[in-house]
Amino acid sequence: MKKLIILAAALCTGSVFADEGMWQPHQLPTIAKDLKKAGLKLSPEKLTNLTDFPMGAIVSLGGCTASFVSDKGLVVTNHHCAYGSIQYNSTEENNLLENGFLAKKLGEELQAAAGSRIYVTENIVNVSNQIKKGLTGSMSGSDRYAHIDNMSKKLVAECESDKAYRCSVVNFHGGLEYYLFKQLMIRDVRLVHAPANSVGKYGGDIDNWMWPRHTGDYAFYRAYVGKDGKPADFSEDNVPFKPKHHLKVNAKGVDDGDYIMVLGYPGRTNRYRTADEVKNTFTENYPLTKELMGSLVETIKGNSEEGSDERLKYASLIAGLANYEKNRGSMMESYHKGTTQQRKDQLNKELRKWVNKKSSRKKQFGGAIGELDNLVATSHATYKRDTIFGYASISSMMSSASRLYRLALEKQKTDMERESGYQERDLNRISQSMKRISRRYEAKVDQAILMNLLTRYAQLPAKERIQDVDRFFSIDDGFSEARLAKKLDKMYAKTKLGDEAVRLAWMEKSVADFEKSEDPFIQYAVKTYKARKALEDKSKDLSGKLNAVRPKYMEAIIAYNKSKGLPIYADANSTLRVTYGNVKGYSPKDGMYAVPFTTLDGLLQKEIGEEPFNSPKKLLDVINKKDYGSYYKKDIDSVPVNYLGTLDITGGNSGSPTLNDKAELVGLVFDGVYESIIGDWDYDPSLNRSIHVDSRYMLWVMEKVDGAHNLIKEMDIVR
Amino acid sequence: MKKLIILAAALCTGSVFADEGMWQPHQLPTIAKDLKKAGLKLSPEKLTNLTDFPMGAIVSLGGCTASFVSDKGLVVTNHHCAYGSIQYNSTEENNLLENGFLAKKLGEELQAAAGSRIYVTENIVNVSNQIKKGLTGSMSGSDRYAHIDNMSKKLVAECESDKAYRCSVVNFHGGLEYYLFKQLMIRDVRLVHAPANSVGKYGGDIDNWMWPRHTGDYAFYRAYVGKDGKPADFSEDNVPFKPKHHLKVNAKGVDDGDYIMVLGYPGRTNRYRTADEVKNTFTENYPLTKELMGSLVETIKGNSEEGSDERLKYASLIAGLANYEKNRGSMMESYHKGTTQQRKDQLNKELRKWVNKKSSRKKQFGGAIGELDNLVATSHATYKRDTIFGYASISSMMSSASRLYRLALEKQKTDMERESGYQERDLNRISQSMKRISRRYEAKVDQAILMNLLTRYAQLPAKERIQDVDRFFSIDDGFSEARLAKKLDKMYAKTKLGDEAVRLAWMEKSVADFEKSEDPFIQYAVKTYKARKALEDKSKDLSGKLNAVRPKYMEAIIAYNKSKGLPIYADANSTLRVTYGNVKGYSPKDGMYAVPFTTLDGLLQKEIGEEPFNSPKKLLDVINKKDYGSYYKKDIDSVPVNYLGTLDITGGNSGSPTLNDKAELVGLVFDGVYESIIGDWDYDPSLNRSIHVDSRYMLWVMEKVDGAHNLIKEMDIVR
Repeated sequence: MKKLIILAAALCTGSVFADEGMWQPHQLPTIAKDLKKAGLKLSPEKLTNLTDFPMGAIVSLGGCTASFVSDKGLVVTNHHCAYGSIQYNSTEENNLLENGFLAKKLGEELQAAAGSRIYVTENIVNVSNQIKKGLTGSMSGSDRYAHIDNMSKKLVAECESDKAYRCSVVNFHGGLEYYLFKQLMIRDVRLVHAPANSVGKYGGDIDNWMWPRHTGDYAFYRAYVGKDGKPADFSEDNVPFKPKHHLKVNAKGVDDGDYIMVLGYPGRTNRYRTADEVKNTFTENYPLTKELMGSLVETIKGNSEEGSDERLKYASLIAGLANYEKNRGSMMESYHKGTTQQRKDQLNKELRKWVNKKSSRKKQFGGAIGELDNLVATSHATYKRDTIFGYASISSMMSSASRLYRLALEKQKTDMERESGYQERDLNRISQSMKRISRRYEAKVDQAILMNLLTRYAQLPAKERIQDVDRFFSIDDGFSEARLAKKLDKMYAKTKLGDEAVRLAWMEKSVADFEKSEDPFIQYAVKTYKARKALEDKSKDLSGKLNAVRPKYMEAIIAYNKSKGLPIYADANSTLRVTYGNVKGYSPKDGMYAVPFTTLDGLLQKEIGEEPFNSPKKLLDVINKKDYGSYYKKDIDSVPVNYLGTLDITGGNSGSPTLNDKAELVGLVFDGVYESIIGDWDYDPSLNRSIHVDSRYMLWVMEKVDGAHNLIKEMDIVR
Repeated sequence: MKKLIILAAALCTGSVFADEGMWQPHQLPTIAKDLKKAGLKLSPEKLTNLTDFPMGAIVSLGGCTASFVSDKGLVVTNHHCAYGSIQYNSTEENNLLENGFLAKKLGEELQAAAGSRIYVTENIVNVSNQIKKGLTGSMSGSDRYAHIDNMSKKLVAECESDKAYRCSVVNFHGGLEYYLFKQLMIRDVRLVHAPANSVGKYGGDIDNWMWPRHTGDYAFYRAYVGKDGKPADFSEDNVPFKPKHHLKVNAKGVDDGDYIMVLGYPGRTNRYRTADEVKNTFTENYPLTKELMGSLVETIKGNSEEGSDERLKYASLIAGLANYEKNRGSMMESYHKGTTQQRKDQLNKELRKWVNKKSSRKKQFGGAIGELDNLVATSHATYKRDTIFGYASISSMMSSASRLYRLALEKQKTDMERESGYQERDLNRISQSMKRISRRYEAKVDQAILMNLLTRYAQLPAKERIQDVDRFFSIDDGFSEARLAKKLDKMYAKTKLGDEAVRLAWMEKSVADFEKSEDPFIQYAVKTYKARKALEDKSKDLSGKLNAVRPKYMEAIIAYNKSKGLPIYADANSTLRVTYGNVKGYSPKDGMYAVPFTTLDGLLQKEIGEEPFNSPKKLLDVINKKDYGSYYKKDIDSVPVNYLGTLDITGGNSGSPTLNDKAELVGLVFDGVYESIIGDWDYDPSLNRSIHVDSRYMLWVMEKVDGAHNLIKEMDIVR
């Protein structure tokens, strides 16, 4: 009888939380019943062990996820995650983006883009006690921030004493817990195979975040290490890395309703923000940033002719801004159509009621909840300034000058004392970003962007503006567009920071060199440093104060959920998570149903012979011949291309393997549908859908179109 | 055993022809098995009797269909079919379009727009023998045309000897058969009830031809007759017409998959056009007309300010042109995406092969098929001129001058000798159209339209142009835009045809009056008449020649179909037809499925509080209260609003009752989906879907929102 009751409760929990949740591996045993019920055949315990199967096969690319699919270090991820490396190896004569690439043997594999890394998470330790030791209630926000920062840096430094590893301390639930992540960092990464852009990026920006979808968003890397098996810089002598585990690839794929899970590194979600934070974001921050993004795209386009070299340099920024604008647009649309705010308000009310109901609870949480609201209001008060001024870093001149001067300042300190991002471990990244500017900078466009942002900045109330910045740009005694334009004309005419060698040289210079420089952007960095540093300190102080309060708020939320029998998972923070659910369609609007699979024949329907709907001729020929090989799915009478799942994913999950109930690879997750973009704030089980490229489509293209027989042979294919 | 074989054959036939087909009532017994199989409970024989139930309840409004739904002459049709009458009765103080209208008793009912008629088809006679008697193979095309025209006019005149009737002779299969239609013409039509525009036209132009749909496209008229029961002009003494039959309204509606049929007056289809005709249309005529429509909309908008009185006068023309442009766009899209041309080419090939296989068939049809292709080529050779010059009639000045002069010319003849459209029976229509111009004419816009068209006309090769027209507009010795503009300036400054009284006065004037007029448009009509008449005669000659050939082609098609066991139906020609099929969704594209019902809750999702998505507050309130009354449909957890069917409909079917298997009204058909627009040429069972307003939604709005209890009481509702 008791067993039944527990089971019933589990079922209830299951139905409330089904599909939602980005679970830390160690949490899986606590939701074991749900996992089993959903269809998982492996033991959840097994999934908690990072060096066991299948977790040992999952890797991070830093921003994307990937997985080992052979015992020779073959790695599969999304085409859009390998895009930079494909582009990096493309030349006018041999355009790999356009033609795709296949190394028929190891020797033909190409170096990935500079800085490419494969991170294998080997250990996760709860370091909450170490980090929090010494924190007191009476500390100022700044002290609290500094204490945590110092403790983190110390733990990281210890962990990275073995140079083969990259480590990080990450906070969960706003600082309630801290974990130290230790990742093997493989530095020799090579490009093995990518389909043509017209497969891997089929549908382009038009189909981005959209269903129906027909994108072959996959590509292959290989991890190389030194002969001693340890990470090493690129060398011809290096050998393929031998992972302890790799995934089998299932060629039979999944059906509607099947269990699927995604293991990966989701970036950031905001599921536990307060009602005020949600309201501020959707009614003020997002409308501002959306408008700003659109305006910056106009500015860039207006200052670079279509098809020109200038425009090409900004193609990626334009795509990013437009993407962002679409993203914000979708979120605002969903917010205003849906009930997110009502439910947040409701939770806010209920939580307070629940807290106040019991005096011990009131004592424990009551103060923190009220204080959190105050801090949120303080933080939001200057959102316009913070947003507009923050975006000034889009100007390469502004950002490189500030960053270079800061580096000179930080270099005066010991490595441990330096600001994160300016330690010895970061220098390589800084110099790479200084190099990258060369391919992405055009003075005229940079100037127009800065003009746009400073004009907006100048409209802010005086008390929000920064005196030294005002003075530098001569807007302290009233704003004149013409005067500012003239000032910028002069600055861009005079600065030498547009030159890569000059930027790199500044990395080695002293504070005194900066102070006596006549470069106008270096002068800007020097003359406004104090004021900007003061803002940064204020922000850190606020951050420290929030750190004292938000964990308490989260404790209240967790206790409240527990009282209702609901488990809780932490917001995404680029650490390893598991999400599970099912293959499933959805109704994007009344009268329409998105079915869970698209087909080769549907791809043909989309084909227009022009970008982004211009499949390779060979692919079209094979479809027209109905040569489906062994990848045919009967109920759709075709080969499945993409499918929908209920998984709870976000950016960073790109490239994550989609696994079946036996943890075999049945696809890669690469996107979410338009209606699920708001999922970063609010998961709606009826609308939240992940988009996956089907393993059958990957194998079909590899076999029938690209002739990647060597890779098919190398992988363990379950047929 | 034999029975089973026949049944199997019937099943095959059924599956090939399911849903496609606009059947003449007398044909229904020939497809009786299919009808039964599809679910019809009535005897097909019963449907052949025009004065029996249910055919006796179906009426034409001339361009729309409607049906009697009470024994007191209550008629239901689409809101968009009654739109003119609602508009006609609207004033600034009492805007019935905006507010809707409900007569709570007979005395409150309002006169419909001038010229409104209800036609009850009482008899259909095959008059092929009479019409064809005297036709010989050696006749010229013109003589043939004149013979048929004269015979038709004679039959019509005889039939209309009883002034209560309106008669017409209509050809089927391009002249293979002729039928005489006798329709009781009810002249006193009154508006009884219409929901607000924001219900009846919900979604407006945006949703036009679109799914998902949430439109309450229904309205009620009442037919009145004299005390003697005979049609009469409007009089307060008139009484409601007592139809022999009326439809019951089913409040339980239909389910997915249910049998439905539509009885109505579809306007025009082109299902049996030759491969060349299809190709010409989709690759030349439609691209030209589409571009032309778009350009004319631009011209009108460019010459009338948004929101101005001028713009309002052209609102309806703009809507019509834009509608047309969208229509053509959809058809071209479908044509280029689909296989229409391939299948037409295939049929063309197979038909010829089949004809040539047997010498008797070759002798019977061979010549006609070849000759038809020649005539099609001849007709198409001047399509640009014919299209552009044809559209000149959009200019009210051009069309009214030409029409008035023609009237004077025709009036010189006996009534029977006159051109159709200029007989005594037509005078009322002409004067009404002359009056209508007053509300739709603005000199500046009319001039700009004409300038646009004449500029295009002037670009035509000289041999396609019309010398007298060239001479009149001084483009016979080269085209100068400035000169033409000046000429038009003068013409519009001088003409008096913009004045309604002047136009009406010209209806009474003699040919001599026209010849000595100095009105520039009258001069145009007079001076170019001969040339235009010559073109008309040539066109009639061609028409006569086609009439000698196309019926033979159709005979071949019919015989060919018969050889394959397939029945055949005639192209739509505004005569009474039956189409049947099922409630059914469809896949508009890979990865998406349009489900067959929309819901009240889906309407809420669309709501933005602005036209055309601005439901009445009361309606929203009732939805929010989930007050579904007895109209709730469980599987969609709401009241169904619109639904999809597989029925084969086209323009003219608007307002047609949708009937269930017992011929009870379960809705009104009011549109087809975007992908079905090409259906006028080519019915695709996977994409062709009709859109119906659900009887449950009609009754729900009437009961819960508009309080039309008197009408609900008056009708026979099956609950």
